[in-house]
Amino acid sequence: MIKKIVLRDDEMPTQWYNVVPDLPNGLQPPLDPETKEPMGPDKLAAVFPMGLLEQEMSDQRFIDIPEEVLEVLKIWRPSPLVRAHNLEKALNTKAKIFFKNEGVSPVGSHKPNSAVAQAFYNKKEGVKRLATETGAGQWGSALSLATSKFGLECKVYMVRVSFDQKPYRKSIMQTFGADVIPSPSTDTNTGRAILEKMPDTPGSLGIAISEALEDAATRDDTKYALGSVLNHVILHQSIIGLEAKKQMELAGEFPDVIVGCCGGGSNFAGLAVPYVPDYLEGKKIRFVGMEPASCPSLTGGKLAYDFGDVAQTTPLLYMYTLGHDFIPPGIHAGGLRYHGMAPIVSAMVRENIVDPVKVHQLECFEAGVLFAKTEGIIPAPETCHAIRGAIIEATKDLNDPKTILFNFSGHGLIDMGSFDRYYAGELKDYDYPEEEIAKSMANLPKI
Amino acid sequence: MIKKIVLRDDEMPTQWYNVVPDLPNGLQPPLDPETKEPMGPDKLAAVFPMGLLEQEMSDQRFIDIPEEVLEVLKIWRPSPLVRAHNLEKALNTKAKIFFKNEGVSPVGSHKPNSAVAQAFYNKKEGVKRLATETGAGQWGSALSLATSKFGLECKVYMVRVSFDQKPYRKSIMQTFGADVIPSPSTDTNTGRAILEKMPDTPGSLGIAISEALEDAATRDDTKYALGSVLNHVILHQSIIGLEAKKQMELAGEFPDVIVGCCGGGSNFAGLAVPYVPDYLEGKKIRFVGMEPASCPSLTGGKLAYDFGDVAQTTPLLYMYTLGHDFIPPGIHAGGLRYHGMAPIVSAMVRENIVDPVKVHQLECFEAGVLFAKTEGIIPAPETCHAIRGAIIEATKDLNDPKTILFNFSGHGLIDMGSFDRYYAGELKDYDYPEEEIAKSMANLPKI
Repeated sequence: MIKKIVLRDDEMPTQWYNVVPDLPNGLQPPLDPETKEPMGPDKLAAVFPMGLLEQEMSDQRFIDIPEEVLEVLKIWRPSPLVRAHNLEKALNTKAKIFFKNEGVSPVGSHKPNSAVAQAFYNKKEGVKRLATETGAGQWGSALSLATSKFGLECKVYMVRVSFDQKPYRKSIMQTFGADVIPSPSTDTNTGRAILEKMPDTPGSLGIAISEALEDAATRDDTKYALGSVLNHVILHQSIIGLEAKKQMELAGEFPDVIVGCCGGGSNFAGLAVPYVPDYLEGKKIRFVGMEPASCPSLTGGKLAYDFGDVAQTTPLLYMYTLGHDFIPPGIHAGGLRYHGMAPIVSAMVRENIVDPVKVHQLECFEAGVLFAKTEGIIPAPETCHAIRGAIIEATKDLNDPKTILFNFSGHGLIDMGSFDRYYAGELKDYDYPEEEIAKSMANLPKI
Repeated sequence: MIKKIVLRDDEMPTQWYNVVPDLPNGLQPPLDPETKEPMGPDKLAAVFPMGLLEQEMSDQRFIDIPEEVLEVLKIWRPSPLVRAHNLEKALNTKAKIFFKNEGVSPVGSHKPNSAVAQAFYNKKEGVKRLATETGAGQWGSALSLATSKFGLECKVYMVRVSFDQKPYRKSIMQTFGADVIPSPSTDTNTGRAILEKMPDTPGSLGIAISEALEDAATRDDTKYALGSVLNHVILHQSIIGLEAKKQMELAGEFPDVIVGCCGGGSNFAGLAVPYVPDYLEGKKIRFVGMEPASCPSLTGGKLAYDFGDVAQTTPLLYMYTLGHDFIPPGIHAGGLRYHGMAPIVSAMVRENIVDPVKVHQLECFEAGVLFAKTEGIIPAPETCHAIRGAIIEATKDLNDPKTILFNFSGHGLIDMGSFDRYYAGELKDYDYPEEEIAKSMANLPKI
C-alpha cells in the first residue's frame, strides 16, 4: 500500500513559483506611511537586501533557486508526501487524506524554506547580522539554522509568552549561535516604551517585529528578516506545493481540497499557490485557510491598509487585519497570533479563491491527539488547526468523499508543554474578542 | 553534489538480518540464574511472546518482516543516508563522512524500529499490555508510539533523573496514551525496597528494568519489552544497516570505518551487523563502538555472565558488564547509562571485530555543537558520542582519508535541557569510577 511518496535530491524543484502575476486583479502596492504613495525598493533597502526586494516586487512567474540555497535545503528536502490511511479509518471516511510533512526539517517546521533563502541573499550582499522576531519560536529556530549555515550573526526577539513556555526553542537557537531575548525587551526604544506602559504584557508578534525592525534600522551591519506575510517569503515557501504536485501526480491523485493553517499565511500559501494556475484553468479546487477564533484576521478582520507592526514602522500593507495594535490572547499556537495576513493570501480570499474557516484551540488539540495516535506523528499546535480542517473536510459529507491535501507544517515535539496544559484541562477556548478588535480597528491608518 | 540518498517505500528491506549464525564461535546461551543451566524459551515465555523468543534463539540468517510491521515503519522509513560535506570541510579532512539519519522517526530516534516489531508480536499473541523501562526516554517514547499503533496499553518506568530532566519525553509518551512513572517507583516491590534504602537515588536502567519485569511477571495480561541488549532487538535494528548498505552502494561507496554509540548496543549493532559478512569475507572494515568513560562496559568491564538488572530477575547473559548493581553517574546521555552490553556486541568485541573507544561527555557535546552548526541537525547527547567517534576517525591520519559511516541515532530537539547545562558550564567529565566498579564487580554471580 502506498504510504508515502519521496523524491530524490535531484527531483527537487529548481525554481520557485511566484503567484503574483497570476492573481486576478493583482496586488495593491505597499504604501509609504508618510506620503501614502506606493513604496519603491529604495526606501525598503535600509532593512532588506536588493535580492529579496526584487523578489518582493517581481512579476516573473518562475525564479531560479540559487545552487547554494538548494544545497542547504537538501539537508531535509524534498519532504515526504504521506497518505493518512489510519486517520481516514478512524474517521470512518472514504475521503483520501494526504499530508505534506514539513516536520522533517532540522527545526521541525516549514520555516527554514524561506530562512535559508533570506540568509543567502543577505550574505551575498555583505550583510553581517540579521535581526528578527519569533512567535512560537519556529521562525527564530529556522533563521538561526540558516544564519549558521551562511556565517551570519542572528538576533532574535522572541514573544515573551513563548520565551517562557518554550525554553527548548530558545536553546535550539542558541545551539545555532543566535542571541535570543524575550520581547518586549529593554534593548530597543519600542520595547522599553511598551514595558513601561504594560510591564506584564505577554508580548505579541507585532511588538517583536517593531523591535527587530528598530534594531535593523539603527545598525549599519544589520538587516531584518521576516518569517511570513511578505511576497518573497511565500515565493520561497512555494517549494512545498511544487513538490507536493509532483508527488500527488506520482500517487495518481489530484486534490479536491487543499488545507493549511494561517498565521501570517506562508505555510498555507506555500502549499496552495502552485495549484492556483490549475484553479484558474477551471479545475475544481477548494482552498481552505484555518485560523484561530481568537485571532481571526480573515473571518473577523477587514481588508485594509495597515501596519505590520505595533510601532507603525513598516510600510502599509493591503491585507486582512484586526488592527496593528491588537494583542491576541495567549493561545498555544503562538505562530497564529498575528493581527494581519499575507497580502497574497488576503487577495486570494478577496477573489473568493480561498475559504477562511475559524476554529477553537481545544478542538484543534483534540484533532492533533487523534492524528498522533493514528498516524504516529505529534503535530505542533499550529498544525493541529490544519488537521482539524482536514478532518472537517473529510467528514462533512460522507457520501461525497474528497481527496484532501493538507500541510503538516511542523511537529510538536518541542511544544509538549502546550499538550501538558491541554491534558491538565488548563487550556480554554477564547471567543472572538469583539471589544478589543473594535478598539484596534478604530486605529487603522486613514488612507 | 550528492547530499543524501533516499529510498522509496518499496525499496525498504523486507527481511531482517540475524548476525548470530555468522558470529565466529557463536554466542553463549543465557543461563537460568537458579540452575545455571541454559535457559529455554519456556521459562522466558512468562515475560516475552513466542514470536520474539523464536527470533531471540533463531539460527536463520534472514527473517521476514511482517507486512503489518512494514506498514508502520513506512511512516518514516527508509531513513536518509546523508553525506556530511560541511563537517568534513570544517575538519579540514579529505575523509568522507556519511551518516544514517535515524532522527527522522516520529519520536526522533532509531528505537521504534524494534518497538513496532515487539508491539506487533505481542498483539498477535493476545497480549493486552506491555511494561518497559526507559533511560533517556527514547525507548519509552518509541514503545508508546508502537503500542498506540497496535492498540495495546503501555506502562513505562522512566529512570528518575531523566523523568525530571526531560519532561517533554514524558508528555510525548502520554500523547501516545502510555502511563509513565519515575523509577524507582512505589508501584513495585523492587522500587519500594530501593526507595527505602536510597530515597534520593537518580535511578538507573538496571532498576527500571527490574520494576518493569516485576510488573510483567505479576500480571497475566502484561508482557515485558526491552529496548536494547537482546538478540531480537538487534535483529529488528538490522534494518538500519541493510538500508545503509543499499544507499552506500547507490552512492558508489563502501565504508572503511563504521561508528556508533553503545549503550545497550542496539543502534550500533543495527548499523554494523549487516556488514559483518563482508568483514568475514575479507573486506577491511573497522567497527568502532563509542562508549562514555563514566560507564565503560566494553573498555572498563569484564566479559562474564551477569544479570541484566539490579534485582537479579533476568536470565544471566554472557556480556561485557560493570556489574549489575553498578549505578553510573547522571551523565546527560541517559541512553548510555547501562551496566552491560548486548551479548552480540560483546561477542564482536571478544572476536576483535569491534574496537571499543571511550570518550568524555564534554568532548561529545562539543562535537555535537560543531555538527549542528555545520550539518544543521542537532544531535541527541547519545548521538554526540558517535559524532565524536566519527571526528576522531576522520582526523587521526589526514594522509590516509577513510570513508566513514556513522549512525545518527537520534536528534536532540527534546534534549535541549542538557545542552543548556552544557552551555552554562554546569556539566563535568566523570572519570572512570574505579571504586564503584570494583564493588559492583565483586557481586558478579558465580558460575
